[in-house]
Amino acid sequence: MHPNDPRLRSFVDVKPESDFPIQNLPYGVVSTADDPAPRVGVAIGDFVLDLAALQAAKLLDLPEDVFTQSSINAFMALGPNVWRRTRARINALLRHDNPELRDHAELRAKALLPMSQVKLHLPLRVAGFTDFYSSKEHATNVGTMFRDKTNPLLPNWLHIPIGYNGRASTVVVSGTQIHRPRGQLKPPSAELPSFGPCKRLDFELEIGVVVGQSSAMGTMLTEQQAEEMIFGFTLLNDWSARDIQQWEYVPLGPFQAKAFATSISPWIVTREALEPFRVAGPVQDPAPLPYLQQKGANNYDMALEVALRTPAMQQPARISATNFKYMYWSSVQQLVHHASSGCAMSVGDLLGSGTVSGPEKDQLGSLLELSWNGTEPLQLPGGELRGFLEDGDSLVMRGWCQGDGYRVGFGEVEGTVLAAE
Amino acid sequence: MHPNDPRLRSFVDVKPESDFPIQNLPYGVVSTADDPAPRVGVAIGDFVLDLAALQAAKLLDLPEDVFTQSSINAFMALGPNVWRRTRARINALLRHDNPELRDHAELRAKALLPMSQVKLHLPLRVAGFTDFYSSKEHATNVGTMFRDKTNPLLPNWLHIPIGYNGRASTVVVSGTQIHRPRGQLKPPSAELPSFGPCKRLDFELEIGVVVGQSSAMGTMLTEQQAEEMIFGFTLLNDWSARDIQQWEYVPLGPFQAKAFATSISPWIVTREALEPFRVAGPVQDPAPLPYLQQKGANNYDMALEVALRTPAMQQPARISATNFKYMYWSSVQQLVHHASSGCAMSVGDLLGSGTVSGPEKDQLGSLLELSWNGTEPLQLPGGELRGFLEDGDSLVMRGWCQGDGYRVGFGEVEGTVLAAE
Repeated sequence: MHPNDPRLRSFVDVKPESDFPIQNLPYGVVSTADDPAPRVGVAIGDFVLDLAALQAAKLLDLPEDVFTQSSINAFMALGPNVWRRTRARINALLRHDNPELRDHAELRAKALLPMSQVKLHLPLRVAGFTDFYSSKEHATNVGTMFRDKTNPLLPNWLHIPIGYNGRASTVVVSGTQIHRPRGQLKPPSAELPSFGPCKRLDFELEIGVVVGQSSAMGTMLTEQQAEEMIFGFTLLNDWSARDIQQWEYVPLGPFQAKAFATSISPWIVTREALEPFRVAGPVQDPAPLPYLQQKGANNYDMALEVALRTPAMQQPARISATNFKYMYWSSVQQLVHHASSGCAMSVGDLLGSGTVSGPEKDQLGSLLELSWNGTEPLQLPGGELRGFLEDGDSLVMRGWCQGDGYRVGFGEVEGTVLAAE
Repeated sequence: MHPNDPRLRSFVDVKPESDFPIQNLPYGVVSTADDPAPRVGVAIGDFVLDLAALQAAKLLDLPEDVFTQSSINAFMALGPNVWRRTRARINALLRHDNPELRDHAELRAKALLPMSQVKLHLPLRVAGFTDFYSSKEHATNVGTMFRDKTNPLLPNWLHIPIGYNGRASTVVVSGTQIHRPRGQLKPPSAELPSFGPCKRLDFELEIGVVVGQSSAMGTMLTEQQAEEMIFGFTLLNDWSARDIQQWEYVPLGPFQAKAFATSISPWIVTREALEPFRVAGPVQDPAPLPYLQQKGANNYDMALEVALRTPAMQQPARISATNFKYMYWSSVQQLVHHASSGCAMSVGDLLGSGTVSGPEKDQLGSLLELSWNGTEPLQLPGGELRGFLEDGDSLVMRGWCQGDGYRVGFGEVEGTVLAAE
């Protein structure tokens, strides 16, 4: 049976609503109180399977140190054939009818770590972070708010998967607290800028593509090459200081408004695990230039949700529910464009999709859009209002693809806002 | 005597016009045919002093593997006190009156490598590449050409050291050939964009700051902290595709127009070696916000030259001669601003100054300005005209600070343009 077969079951008990059935097996980096050295693992139900332990037990046929690492980069560098073979092997080891691990009590005790007892680290060493802007709905909303209601999309938007280089040093794992940034602010009413804590702190719901192979400087990528370079996907919160951005961004784009933090989920879901959930993206009209043309279903049917919990709330409340399938430009198109000038791609490059907004009012991927630049604050359960994020607010994103009786998900990416230092 | 003392002489013969007297000692990474393993060295006259060889001979008191590396990052990570102590020690070892190395024929033969016989590698592993836009003359010229002649500077320019994140993966060392990039082009006369080789390929003369220490996410830097984090400086050519840039850059800034290549000199001149050449920068009016205010001389009196050689020319011809002292925003101000949102800085961050243009017509740091966007092509010796770079053209930048009887320089950064792949 193919590792994605819906009929597969594991000897590890997995509830139907779990993000981590045997059909998923996303990669992460974990450590435990007993063994604080970070190593690579995959999530299965409420457990993490320690791949360094499997490797030490000679159950995986791979270079010796590939999983005793603080990132998945060394594993990614081995390439798509190894990714496929390793996933199939781990999948086989976890099947209910395979005794190799199931009946090896000592190894099981060592390799199956209860999720509640592990520390989850940043799963990849981020080589470069690039952020795209590929939701037509989001670009239209932003253009309507800040530029021209009657002509909100800039002329290049339908031709180029617009993107910019972000800051790799502040990509952090879910659970990392986020200091409110300081920066230069100049509201339209002020004559001169001042320096102080951002007043319009926002999130952006995105999916991150993790590039697992490099490409040479001076060369372009075909659709096929780009596809095979994609190792997997992560949930991504592109924290944004709207007021800093508004003053700084002309003419060279966002800089400090986005540089203070980007949060990702601890789990990288492999491209292969998402294969059953491919769907066609929106029709692209005008047709993209030939180097950007794609055949077949190039998007994913992936549910995405955002929840917010203020210090006064017991539980997070859902404030948005959308789907990755709405994205106008696909991940493959983004990657092909990224390399089109001859830009070398690196193992560990992270490509943010851009804010994922859908066509409906409750499908928007940022507070900027949900509160229409603060003019229509969200009303939360309990009656609190939010135009932008306040200190103490916690933001939680979740994402998953729904199969028949199982779901392939990311876990969550959570971040709580602290006051400016 | 202080290592910068102009009276110092080395037992290695150094001509007055050499970039590498005993007062300089810039760091690079070299290998030789005999020993192809890259290691760290410093330039002295027409030689490279192999620091790994000195270390093996126990003449330097540092962690064992710090110079047997393919980058200077491990050395930089040791911090400013080690930088200072190590430079003083190397300086002492090279003095004409110190017999330790001078009279140790065997070690001298091993450690002093003729420059003509070494291969020069990229000296640092670039953690992040950021490019600023800090010459008022350059920003004024660009604004005059493309925006508003009567009001060329955007409102934020005099308040913010404007910058954007660049692409680290394509920072290459001098001598690397540069493929002309492909990209989306839409001249104003065309209705739709097309994809093909860039037609307006340009250079930008810049100085790069090499950050040698990290800072924590969520914290700001004082002027003093930023100063001490700067390890040194490099010459930098920010290759630019003007036509790609013009179509892609709104609203998120340059992306593929700058992603294909950035060339730097093989030698990182230390901040300490440049101390004698500090000068005051231009008066900043309006006064910067308090977090950006600096005391004392914050610029450097550093001569910069650009030369161009077409395939038909025997020798490069100088096309620009300017000075780093003209920069409006200083390197320290750039670094303080970079961290101001809480952005973590990393060992190996490279900060481009932005194009260095002076007030005069022959002091401009890009062909865009020298040929006024191609409308006034440069006439080269031999009669050829250049609006932008053509295939086969070779671009050479040099830079140095002139002392009394010696100069502290960078060597050169050279790059030749190849046809699009």
